Amino acid sequence: MSRTNFSEMSCPIARSLDRVGEWWSILILRDAFHGLTRFDQFQKSLPIAPSMLTRRLADLVEDGLLARRRYSDHPPRDEYVLTERGRDFRPVLVAMMAWGNRQFAGPEGVPSQLVDAETGIPADPIIIDRNTGREIDDTHFRFAAGPGADDNVRGRQAFLDARREKTQ
Amino acid sequence: MSRTNFSEMSCPIARSLDRVGEWWSILILRDAFHGLTRFDQFQKSLPIAPSMLTRRLADLVEDGLLARRRYSDHPPRDEYVLTERGRDFRPVLVAMMAWGNRQFAGPEGVPSQLVDAETGIPADPIIIDRNTGREIDDTHFRFAAGPGADDNVRGRQAFLDARREKTQ
Repeated sequence: MSRTNFSEMSCPIARSLDRVGEWWSILILRDAFHGLTRFDQFQKSLPIAPSMLTRRLADLVEDGLLARRRYSDHPPRDEYVLTERGRDFRPVLVAMMAWGNRQFAGPEGVPSQLVDAETGIPADPIIIDRNTGREIDDTHFRFAAGPGADDNVRGRQAFLDARREKTQ
Repeated sequence: MSRTNFSEMSCPIARSLDRVGEWWSILILRDAFHGLTRFDQFQKSLPIAPSMLTRRLADLVEDGLLARRRYSDHPPRDEYVLTERGRDFRPVLVAMMAWGNRQFAGPEGVPSQLVDAETGIPADPIIIDRNTGREIDDTHFRFAAGPGADDNVRGRQAFLDARREKTQ
């Protein structure tokens, strides 16, 4: 299926999605964070066709989120490990897990969660600004165009700013 | 294109992706957070075919992230506004924006970012645990199965636990 390429868009979310937005990529990354590295391990974990898994792994390697590492020469076998860029994706998975647990957990409770490694107490993940320590909500923080903005970003930003002024 | 349905998977990330994992959905949500509500506004912002935009908006309404609101009776016109569930998705967008800015900003600088609404100083978004105030990294927090885990979640979890014991 041919897709609109997001990588040229001047928006950090679009650029992220261009690397992880395909249907299986984020679940493969989730499994990588669980320590899975080998093709057969991913295949056992995910109901994915082998050809599709091959393609998604190759894309994640090409985009620098996973690195191929030879673990057997006879027969030749590679495994896939998270790179620094891949490990840096962790907060997105954590935020997505927290949203899924808040919004879609059934009466049986949450399927999986983050817990304090020492106490085992479930974490309540929130996003704060490291500099001020304040929770990032729409009261104290707002989206703003950066130095690398193009006309499209500036257009959306102008719309948002006009709307904010109207409601103030 | 027929896809594997993620909604039945017992994993909060899979359940989230089942609602927002289609190619355009997260960019539509991004625009909704920028205050766009009308079909023609989304269409102006995104290089998306009208039939695809119609489908994606309908999916987001069906999954409870957007609500349809009639804004004109003659001619009949609806707009799309974030529901509480949709607004609750904000941390995922923030984490994705931060990752995109860290990993893919060019030499010209970041295209857009979150700034402190008063000072205009760019935020540095990190995820912490609300209860303990500690940053969520892989030292102090770990994934764990919850009460709603199925065999698949428990299998991945057992793999992760065995691996952790091996490396300790």
